[in-house]
Amino acid sequence: MTAHPPHGTGLDLRHGVVDLSHGAGGRAMADLIAAVFAPAFENPRLRPGNDQAILTLPPGRIAMTTDGYVVSPLVFPGGDIGSLAVHGTVNDLAMGGARPLHLTASFIIEEGFALADLVRIARSMGAAARAAGVTIIAGDTKVVERGKADRLFIATAGIGLVPDGIAWSGDRIRPGDAVLVSGSLGDHGVAVMSLREGLGFETPILSDSAPLGDLVAAMIEVAGGAIRCLRDPTRGGLAATLNELAHQSGLGFAIHEAAIPVKPDVAAACELLGLDPLNVACEGRLVAMVAPEAVAALLGVLRAHPLGREAVRIGTAVADADRFVTRRTAFGGERIIDWLAGEQLPRIC
Amino acid sequence: MTAHPPHGTGLDLRHGVVDLSHGAGGRAMADLIAAVFAPAFENPRLRPGNDQAILTLPPGRIAMTTDGYVVSPLVFPGGDIGSLAVHGTVNDLAMGGARPLHLTASFIIEEGFALADLVRIARSMGAAARAAGVTIIAGDTKVVERGKADRLFIATAGIGLVPDGIAWSGDRIRPGDAVLVSGSLGDHGVAVMSLREGLGFETPILSDSAPLGDLVAAMIEVAGGAIRCLRDPTRGGLAATLNELAHQSGLGFAIHEAAIPVKPDVAAACELLGLDPLNVACEGRLVAMVAPEAVAALLGVLRAHPLGREAVRIGTAVADADRFVTRRTAFGGERIIDWLAGEQLPRIC
Repeated sequence: MTAHPPHGTGLDLRHGVVDLSHGAGGRAMADLIAAVFAPAFENPRLRPGNDQAILTLPPGRIAMTTDGYVVSPLVFPGGDIGSLAVHGTVNDLAMGGARPLHLTASFIIEEGFALADLVRIARSMGAAARAAGVTIIAGDTKVVERGKADRLFIATAGIGLVPDGIAWSGDRIRPGDAVLVSGSLGDHGVAVMSLREGLGFETPILSDSAPLGDLVAAMIEVAGGAIRCLRDPTRGGLAATLNELAHQSGLGFAIHEAAIPVKPDVAAACELLGLDPLNVACEGRLVAMVAPEAVAALLGVLRAHPLGREAVRIGTAVADADRFVTRRTAFGGERIIDWLAGEQLPRIC
Repeated sequence: MTAHPPHGTGLDLRHGVVDLSHGAGGRAMADLIAAVFAPAFENPRLRPGNDQAILTLPPGRIAMTTDGYVVSPLVFPGGDIGSLAVHGTVNDLAMGGARPLHLTASFIIEEGFALADLVRIARSMGAAARAAGVTIIAGDTKVVERGKADRLFIATAGIGLVPDGIAWSGDRIRPGDAVLVSGSLGDHGVAVMSLREGLGFETPILSDSAPLGDLVAAMIEVAGGAIRCLRDPTRGGLAATLNELAHQSGLGFAIHEAAIPVKPDVAAACELLGLDPLNVACEGRLVAMVAPEAVAALLGVLRAHPLGREAVRIGTAVADADRFVTRRTAFGGERIIDWLAGEQLPRIC
């Protein structure tokens, strides 16, 4: 990418801003795509001149998903809206057992947004896609007037290939199944909230935002048949994930409080912010519901992977007509883990 | 859909509004999905409890695309942001020759948006999808604070199946190829702009917003091999479409001014608004670049379809190293049809 695209539009990527013409379907939009998105996402399938990408997929079942990203601020310790928009959609595919293949990206940009910031975010998105093994094959850019959006929103959609024999779903969970998590909880939400609230830590808390496709592929290879379902505890955190799964399965979950992995810094920030880490979003962790006989094998493969080193079993599915999710203390106490009805953490993803 | 969802959340679809909790991943979001989106999009693949939809696609090549929709106002004569978000993405697939199959939908909603409006738009979207023969298989909802978005933005992504032997592209156009359009130009943009500018017409100008998958399938059946490429002249209008294709093909286009179909009302409104109809978006028209020997057959099949009744040949591809698109008057005059660098019609789609 050069500061001045070859066809001489004078698009100033250092000091310029996005204006309404960049979303108008004319020459300015073509210039923006050529100067910002095409070099950042570079891959043979992304052909800015066409309305659609044409793919030949391997035979088999396809997973498809979408997510919108409105995180504020746009850049946070450990990531930005661009990498998040890749990881979030890649992970939604991976949670269905799919190998993520291709993404599309739709940008809604506020007039006046700095081109330098857009370049930074597009490059981050391209890098995240390459690291996750996916290609961004189609995109769209809309620009709205100043004050009609908050700088930048991104919606990504993705498709992936589901291996034969994998058909995970919350209703496959059975009493006695183990509840595993792949790492510490709440890092992403606390990283964003700390920045927003101006909390200063000696070492900033980093988002856990990461692509989980590779980790899931490793789990499938070792014991795919023993996995009932996977979820990534994003908005609403572990509490929402477990309550949704209780609803789907008709079971309860007994969680051992002492086993829940939360980093000391994250726990301290949650105290300050008045948050329960169980309600705080992760963007690079998974919750696995697995048959008890496969726990050791799956923890082994998780812990052998850089993104699952702190994997741990935190509890068990139990027969419970009330579908309660409970946390049990070492002293025999028991409290219900409810999911929040209201909003605790706006614009975290 | 009932005014009160079965699990008794008291979500008031008549008088209530969207608040931040509806995008928080907790119970309120589950309620919104259950009460608004699930009934509107109803289909067996949309399972709100899962992060992704799993599909078995027929064998063959896949087209994939995405578009964001920020049209203002949200409802206009002949459509709304919901139907537009279906038609736009369906049409981007159809322009590649694909039979549109499945869509995803990502909603970014401003806090305070009326639930009744959301229900209306979701129902319109569901109806448009059913009419276009596609299913909405996955979705996402984000809510941002008041003043951080303009009521509602929607991003849709779609996949479709490309028939064997179809590989259209702008670089396949040859000198002598005919330029066809399927109907009158500028209706959509003028419908939205007239409403926005408060222009009163005895009969309101209706958007042409419509799904073109069926029309394209009919064209393929009759003479798919003679089609070089199709485009829908959306943002930037016919002028942008022809200039893009000139760029891709290395050719020029000679357009007969008298043949360009523009409705008298649309022409009059363009006069008032200071617009050239050639720069104004359509959302239910196509431009076809076709081999000369297939013109009669393709005009026949277009005119036999409700969405192509006014199809007409408007010009010819010509060898031109300058890649100029020119309009020729009946009196032998010739003017260049340029595409606009700047913004003429913000938020038209």
